[in-house]
Amino acid sequence: MDRENLIKQIKLKRSFLCIGLDTDINKIPSHLLEFEDPIFEFNKRIIDETKDLCVAYKPNIAFYESLGVNGWKSLNKTLNYIPKEIFTIADAKRGDIGNTSKMYAKTFLENMDFDSLTVNPFMGADSVKPFLSIKDKWAIILALTSNEGSSDFQRIKSDRDKFIFEHILEITKNWGTDNNIMYVVGATRSDFFIKIRRIIPSHFLLVPGIGHQGGELEDFAKYGMNDECGLLVNSSRGIIYAGEGKDFHKKSRESALQIQRKMDVLLSKRGI
Amino acid sequence: MDRENLIKQIKLKRSFLCIGLDTDINKIPSHLLEFEDPIFEFNKRIIDETKDLCVAYKPNIAFYESLGVNGWKSLNKTLNYIPKEIFTIADAKRGDIGNTSKMYAKTFLENMDFDSLTVNPFMGADSVKPFLSIKDKWAIILALTSNEGSSDFQRIKSDRDKFIFEHILEITKNWGTDNNIMYVVGATRSDFFIKIRRIIPSHFLLVPGIGHQGGELEDFAKYGMNDECGLLVNSSRGIIYAGEGKDFHKKSRESALQIQRKMDVLLSKRGI
Repeated sequence: MDRENLIKQIKLKRSFLCIGLDTDINKIPSHLLEFEDPIFEFNKRIIDETKDLCVAYKPNIAFYESLGVNGWKSLNKTLNYIPKEIFTIADAKRGDIGNTSKMYAKTFLENMDFDSLTVNPFMGADSVKPFLSIKDKWAIILALTSNEGSSDFQRIKSDRDKFIFEHILEITKNWGTDNNIMYVVGATRSDFFIKIRRIIPSHFLLVPGIGHQGGELEDFAKYGMNDECGLLVNSSRGIIYAGEGKDFHKKSRESALQIQRKMDVLLSKRGI
Repeated sequence: MDRENLIKQIKLKRSFLCIGLDTDINKIPSHLLEFEDPIFEFNKRIIDETKDLCVAYKPNIAFYESLGVNGWKSLNKTLNYIPKEIFTIADAKRGDIGNTSKMYAKTFLENMDFDSLTVNPFMGADSVKPFLSIKDKWAIILALTSNEGSSDFQRIKSDRDKFIFEHILEITKNWGTDNNIMYVVGATRSDFFIKIRRIIPSHFLLVPGIGHQGGELEDFAKYGMNDECGLLVNSSRGIIYAGEGKDFHKKSRESALQIQRKMDVLLSKRGI
């Protein structure tokens, strides 16, 4: 999916919500365990109930991989079930030497046909560029993540008085365009968001962080939103595990709807 | 496998060679394509011919993952075929927020029973620690990789006049011990090796880099070896694709044997 289409979907649905499909066999309602593929049955119900409220789904690859061959089957079925107008993100955080990144790109962006993949930039240019050479496909590069450990290396100050995450933005933005690169920005501090938007005013940001990881939607919008929205805000556990019983998917819809309504207001305020 | 056992194997085999199983369906000899599982048949022959010459095998997970469900089957069969006294490395370069890294640890170190996994430290403490809590299992943390792109971020200088890779070593070494952490060090410059050994004198280093990626075994030994060896030096393509015909595995053995003989001399010189 290209940038233009993604923006169209955001305007149409009045939403920039991404739903994280971190589907854990130990956390899904027990009545689903009698199905042949409980993971897919769970995802199917979540998708049915939320597909009009979100513009992206983000399966967390670790959860599928942990189930071995069956997990990959569930992932493929889920991916085929997601409507084509919804942006798909393989949250895999890959990155390796050139020939290996090329393999990962082929796996996720060509064979599995995800629209995008989260990419770890630590190994540099030749580890990221293979993800940027496929038409209408995206690399979503980690810049500043939302977890506690992001202070360990991402926020080290360089001898040029910049944080490492700033160097990452400055360097990587030249490897592609705002039509094939997005950034993972889990900023919980407004001053970081301001720094980031100075370097990359037009790129989309994938913000992991409402629900279980905290963080306020209004703040993200205030400091991160641009004239074409420029944000995908993710919620995983807060939506998919909103309920526990047979009506769990109804609770998920309620949770997603609450967020979507706030997003509608924020888009309108910005004149989008 | 614990540190003591690994050192025992190195002394016994007079080798610190790791063979990378970057098995590519497009590169293996054509006579193997008639088998049901050509990838496994290739690996099986390589293992049969080289298992007395190396102390570790390192499957590159991207290559298996790119084949979907069949690739995971080939990987599992390969892993089961590797003799128990040989150290196994899942070259997967994983790393994510805590609950996700935990999933990756479970997948590779428990379910698949690899001895170790390569880990990308970019996301910090909570992304690495889940790999350090399983007995006799190892995280092999990326510090300074051998590819061109390693200059982009790993070699940025901090405001404390240190390279980022030095910060990585200094910080991460406190998260575990030299009995559950190794480091990927692809240094091609002796001054980097000297810096690294000052920070982590006793840890094992996984050195990716003889064969196709260049780099000299004697230099690695001179600057990287310690009194218990402390090195695993990897070769992938230079060994597994040494030959192209029906006798490809014989050529692989010749290539591995050449390296092992040099390693024997280097170990003896050091009194190991």
